Amino acid sequence: MISVEEAARHITAAFSPIDCETMDLAHLAGRVLAEDVVARCHQPPFPISAMDGYAVRLADGNATRRVIGSAPAGHPFEDKVGPGEALRIFTGGVLPEGADAIVIQEDVLGDGDRITFAANACSAGHIRPAGLDFKTGDVLAPKGKRLTGRDCALLAAGDVTQAKVRRRPRVAIVSVGDELSAPGEPRKPGGIVASSGYGLFAMIQAWGGAPCDFGILPDTQAEIATIADADGDMIVTLGGVSVGDHDLVQKALGTKDFTIDFWKVAMRPGKPLIFGKLGKIPVLGMPGNPVSTLICAILFLRPAIAAMLGTTCETMTLPARLARELPANDTRQTYLRAKLSKRDGDFWVDAFDVQDSSMLNVLSQADALIVRAPNAPAAKAGDRVEVIPLDGH
Amino acid sequence: MISVEEAARHITAAFSPIDCETMDLAHLAGRVLAEDVVARCHQPPFPISAMDGYAVRLADGNATRRVIGSAPAGHPFEDKVGPGEALRIFTGGVLPEGADAIVIQEDVLGDGDRITFAANACSAGHIRPAGLDFKTGDVLAPKGKRLTGRDCALLAAGDVTQAKVRRRPRVAIVSVGDELSAPGEPRKPGGIVASSGYGLFAMIQAWGGAPCDFGILPDTQAEIATIADADGDMIVTLGGVSVGDHDLVQKALGTKDFTIDFWKVAMRPGKPLIFGKLGKIPVLGMPGNPVSTLICAILFLRPAIAAMLGTTCETMTLPARLARELPANDTRQTYLRAKLSKRDGDFWVDAFDVQDSSMLNVLSQADALIVRAPNAPAAKAGDRVEVIPLDGH
Repeated sequence: MISVEEAARHITAAFSPIDCETMDLAHLAGRVLAEDVVARCHQPPFPISAMDGYAVRLADGNATRRVIGSAPAGHPFEDKVGPGEALRIFTGGVLPEGADAIVIQEDVLGDGDRITFAANACSAGHIRPAGLDFKTGDVLAPKGKRLTGRDCALLAAGDVTQAKVRRRPRVAIVSVGDELSAPGEPRKPGGIVASSGYGLFAMIQAWGGAPCDFGILPDTQAEIATIADADGDMIVTLGGVSVGDHDLVQKALGTKDFTIDFWKVAMRPGKPLIFGKLGKIPVLGMPGNPVSTLICAILFLRPAIAAMLGTTCETMTLPARLARELPANDTRQTYLRAKLSKRDGDFWVDAFDVQDSSMLNVLSQADALIVRAPNAPAAKAGDRVEVIPLDGH
Repeated sequence: MISVEEAARHITAAFSPIDCETMDLAHLAGRVLAEDVVARCHQPPFPISAMDGYAVRLADGNATRRVIGSAPAGHPFEDKVGPGEALRIFTGGVLPEGADAIVIQEDVLGDGDRITFAANACSAGHIRPAGLDFKTGDVLAPKGKRLTGRDCALLAAGDVTQAKVRRRPRVAIVSVGDELSAPGEPRKPGGIVASSGYGLFAMIQAWGGAPCDFGILPDTQAEIATIADADGDMIVTLGGVSVGDHDLVQKALGTKDFTIDFWKVAMRPGKPLIFGKLGKIPVLGMPGNPVSTLICAILFLRPAIAAMLGTTCETMTLPARLARELPANDTRQTYLRAKLSKRDGDFWVDAFDVQDSSMLNVLSQADALIVRAPNAPAAKAGDRVEVIPLDGH
């Protein structure tokens, strides 16, 4: 039995970045860059006015100026601004040759051909120099970055229309169990509806992977061995990894080229997690209980997908205070389903009374997982704990 | 000029939930429910064993038991367990008639036809009663909930294959400005590349809307008036809402059936935000600077989309400590682009030196916005401030 941290290290070490594809700007959000993206232009391309006002020469001080024309954004003035002259200019307008200051319009008296203003109104401010935001060749977003909407705007500003990103890693999902049927299908005698796979499907998509459903396999070695045919960059099995006579995944895959990396993690829920390779394809064998599966997915599958995308996904925990006391923990790292709220500037967290790993209802209502370290002592109401917020999952 | 809170209230009040569509389970993640979803079965449907072990009768105490058969998950035992009898059972196996306790296999001696165990090993635990997770007719997810992957697993477990959700609201994006060209197109003299719209597009998708790009309009009243033809549940204009002679959106829409709700918000960046209705279609007029646009989108467009989806999106701010001092704020609520990190269990935040609203590069690198209230006094390094985390945007 290894620790959660050790298990996470083993798993991320087993994956490397997969191949790339070139995508258009409109489809880049959420994708991970496979190479640095550089600006194809300066932004701004030339010095521009940051305000509506008048472009003037500093050397003229606060002498009256003669207005010689106008430069709205997108309409550069063709001539230069000479001594005693001013050019009406608008936000984004190109600073004309000769001018080195903007007087904002609120400071200007008169608005015909001649303008005056107070001496201190004329300073070198309100000009955005060429390349203020970035210069041609600057790295706008580095290799390995998962692009946000903000990044897409930045790339557009840099005249970038495409970028090389990692392909979405294919994750094959295989459910194992004689008792399972798909939602909407006739239930088997003594059977239940398969559930974890549907949650996993959505999570894999949200984390940048391409899930594919390999379906439900019955509890026979021959059927389970067909997992080896699943077409994926990795395979996730659900169920069949515990110690019982009917937990067959290990046995079945043993007939194929399966090498175990580790089996069992000192955690609750999720202890019987298994990880290994089927030939070269990593296989993450999840416990059968849906809550165990989905929590293990957040802790282990998400970083595995990130590693295939050539990036990382640190789970930044949030400090929160306990609404109620918690008993001492045993030797397994425990993830308690809990409600998170904010009061008086602090986050407060309250664990659900029932933490059975079969209870999806509680997991669905939870906002956060309280992380209890192995052997953590009992904690009082008001004590600080670290929680994993669940909103993104 | 109104406050940020007032502006947000005006905006969300102007939207109501739009129409619905029925979606299959595989496409429900991220969608907002238009009605409660109820379970179509009990989960579990019958009492089941939570462990691998033996189903026995409590009344028999710790007498030796005769093993009469086996009940793996999905293979219920047809007969009942009588006095002195035990049934081999596995996790998920149906509890047979007559049995009222599970002895876990670790506590059992012998594994042939006859088993014995210590007296305290036989208790009423390790049984999951029928309906432990939920019962037929229970609300699994309420109207207005944005479904997570966890919810999708729960719905599957409840045998739900479809649900009624809000249609994705169509948001028309119109860029205004003679200086703008699309990325990859020849730049105009004195022109720059349009950028905000590409960021907005990705954000709208992430927030559950369906963006449509109405393109770039030049700075003429006649062209801008064509915004009225944009097909959307709402229209977002970019640029053209300031006070300059070339800020024409208000004038142009005035020729149509445009009523202003408010213009100008006491905030930085984003002051010239305008909101109103074109006939019955809400119009959010964003400032031209891309940083202003994208921050206003987070503060105002996201809740507008949420309101059309029949839900809300509280921006939960995070308490963080200042890495460096901040000067006193003026009368406008200010959103400083900043880097967030975690040290010694606290979040720390450091504002970028340059906060120019044209600088997308800084916005792209930021993790968080420090919220500075109007007239906030100067703050020292180490002081607590509230920040809006940006990772989801």
